[in-house]
Amino acid sequence: MTSADVRLVAEPALVDFGAAILAKVDVPEEDSRAIMENLVQADLRNVESHGVVRLPIYVQRLAAKATNPRPKITIVRETPTSVVIDGDNGMGQIVGLHAMQIAIEKARQSGGMCVFVSVRNSNHYGAAAYYAEMACPHDMIGLSFTIGGINHMVPWGGAEARLGNNPFAVAFPAENDHTVVLDMACSVAARGKIIVAAKEGQPIPADWAVGPDGQPTTDAVEALKGFVQPVGGPKGYALTLTIGLLSTMLSGAAFGSEVTHMYEDFERPQNIGHLFGVLPIALFEDIAVYRRRMRQAIAEIRGARRAPGVAQIYLPGEREALSLAERRRNGIPIGVGVIAELEELGARYGVRLALRDVGRGSA
Amino acid sequence: MTSADVRLVAEPALVDFGAAILAKVDVPEEDSRAIMENLVQADLRNVESHGVVRLPIYVQRLAAKATNPRPKITIVRETPTSVVIDGDNGMGQIVGLHAMQIAIEKARQSGGMCVFVSVRNSNHYGAAAYYAEMACPHDMIGLSFTIGGINHMVPWGGAEARLGNNPFAVAFPAENDHTVVLDMACSVAARGKIIVAAKEGQPIPADWAVGPDGQPTTDAVEALKGFVQPVGGPKGYALTLTIGLLSTMLSGAAFGSEVTHMYEDFERPQNIGHLFGVLPIALFEDIAVYRRRMRQAIAEIRGARRAPGVAQIYLPGEREALSLAERRRNGIPIGVGVIAELEELGARYGVRLALRDVGRGSA
Repeated sequence: MTSADVRLVAEPALVDFGAAILAKVDVPEEDSRAIMENLVQADLRNVESHGVVRLPIYVQRLAAKATNPRPKITIVRETPTSVVIDGDNGMGQIVGLHAMQIAIEKARQSGGMCVFVSVRNSNHYGAAAYYAEMACPHDMIGLSFTIGGINHMVPWGGAEARLGNNPFAVAFPAENDHTVVLDMACSVAARGKIIVAAKEGQPIPADWAVGPDGQPTTDAVEALKGFVQPVGGPKGYALTLTIGLLSTMLSGAAFGSEVTHMYEDFERPQNIGHLFGVLPIALFEDIAVYRRRMRQAIAEIRGARRAPGVAQIYLPGEREALSLAERRRNGIPIGVGVIAELEELGARYGVRLALRDVGRGSA
Repeated sequence: MTSADVRLVAEPALVDFGAAILAKVDVPEEDSRAIMENLVQADLRNVESHGVVRLPIYVQRLAAKATNPRPKITIVRETPTSVVIDGDNGMGQIVGLHAMQIAIEKARQSGGMCVFVSVRNSNHYGAAAYYAEMACPHDMIGLSFTIGGINHMVPWGGAEARLGNNPFAVAFPAENDHTVVLDMACSVAARGKIIVAAKEGQPIPADWAVGPDGQPTTDAVEALKGFVQPVGGPKGYALTLTIGLLSTMLSGAAFGSEVTHMYEDFERPQNIGHLFGVLPIALFEDIAVYRRRMRQAIAEIRGARRAPGVAQIYLPGEREALSLAERRRNGIPIGVGVIAELEELGARYGVRLALRDVGRGSA
């Protein structure tokens, strides 16, 4: 996107805007802000696919009561090392935050435990990294898996979507409160990027998706009717299936044909499943030694000889952290197509989106 | 490979052959057989890259005492949910088996525990799936991560190998004692496949590797001097780094420049690190419900509409299981280049490799 295609929005304005709308569809104040902080963090991190582009569908589902704005989240099974949570069809962000907090709290008890928390009856939870990173300030490695809210991948060799483009994240505490965080889905590109391209009327690369006829397409609208392509062919298929099974078979969440379409079915709850895990580092290694070794590992990666034309080598999650710092200062560039949709949403609920003066920042 | 390029070997003959040679380099009888069963299982499963093609380097390292044939494997840290193991520079297979057995045993105690076992001072452990699958007969999901024994991937944007092509595996118990098992490394193709191609004098696809100059090559010998390419570009880089950190930062195992070259450095122990994990299903879900849901999930994947020309849709690990059953009956086809190397090794130690009569099976 060029700067002509975007408008700048300040982080607090975007959070306030969305939170006010969510409140109108009966989400409690505190939860509204938590949901928006999750979405806006993705936009800050330059992960638009999981940012406010999702707000209209979230609001539409909440308004239709397809998602429960006031869930009663309950623990249905519990041991010192495991928890099963029923999200009562609440927003994925609220259920996810709650589940990861329980994992961290439980992992701190009894002198430290590896804890896994499986979740059913949840919904789309935004960026997987958000939850994995919550473990890091507690000197734990965090893991976060979810099944996607739409089936748009085929089993390898298939021509029928039975799999989500399931993402997962692993976050490691690193130096100076930073993290090294992997957050990946199994397609060559996130479907959210195709949604953004479709909204903006932009073409997509030929290897991102096939249309409903199974043929590669650069037309984002056509791609949304077809299937996204797995990274590495059968490897990506195996990985997305694995993440899907981890996210659903330990909790009774929906898998395969049980997964309803997030954007099309407003009658049935989605019963989205997640799996969260925390590994307290001190169970395995002295924290000081871990920190020193991580510093050294990071320095080695950064310090590798660079390919011609490469200015800098980044750790996973580092570009996103740099984007976050920059956008927090200068404002978040949002594509004009998404802005139009947000403003339309705002008009419906009587909430105004405050854009930043163009002169005050740059995209 | 065509059938003209291969010779057939029966499973027991291959195990006996390798075990006899390993015994000559001071590996105890029981360990020799365990190592060979691990390698030969990979050949049975049509994963030649992790099969007997590795025997010569294993023997060479053992003979040079670069690997310890009689390790004293010790637990150096332990809680109800975690163990740290020092492999005393033993064979990766022996250390890995021991570590996974400890994980499973511990997970069965106290009514069930999620257990993670980190390992240092180990060596190349063969196929990651082998260990993950050990959990399945105990109604546990198994996880297995390792750092590779050679740095031959670059950080994304780099031109210097600081990363292994690190593999991991996740195995789920499924119907009729089968498993669904993901086992993947992060390159487009396993380096072992390039080793096999080089031994057989075959070219490789252009997207598997770059030469030392950073340019794509179809010459397998040239590719072995360069770097393998990560699957999905930066995604594969992030994934291999994550697997590497999980395998080393919780145990004090080697990372980055600390990793010596398995095929070139016979002076220093490799200090290879692994991480194993087990999630007992009963902590989260009734086993009967899990089994029913897995059956249904598998049926849905298998039953998806197929793309034109596709005869069957496979689950991850299913082709390998079918290959194992077929090769156990009919013999294992081994490339003539690898056969020659094995026979040369056998001649050195006075052990003969019994080939099957050509008429008794087909590749």
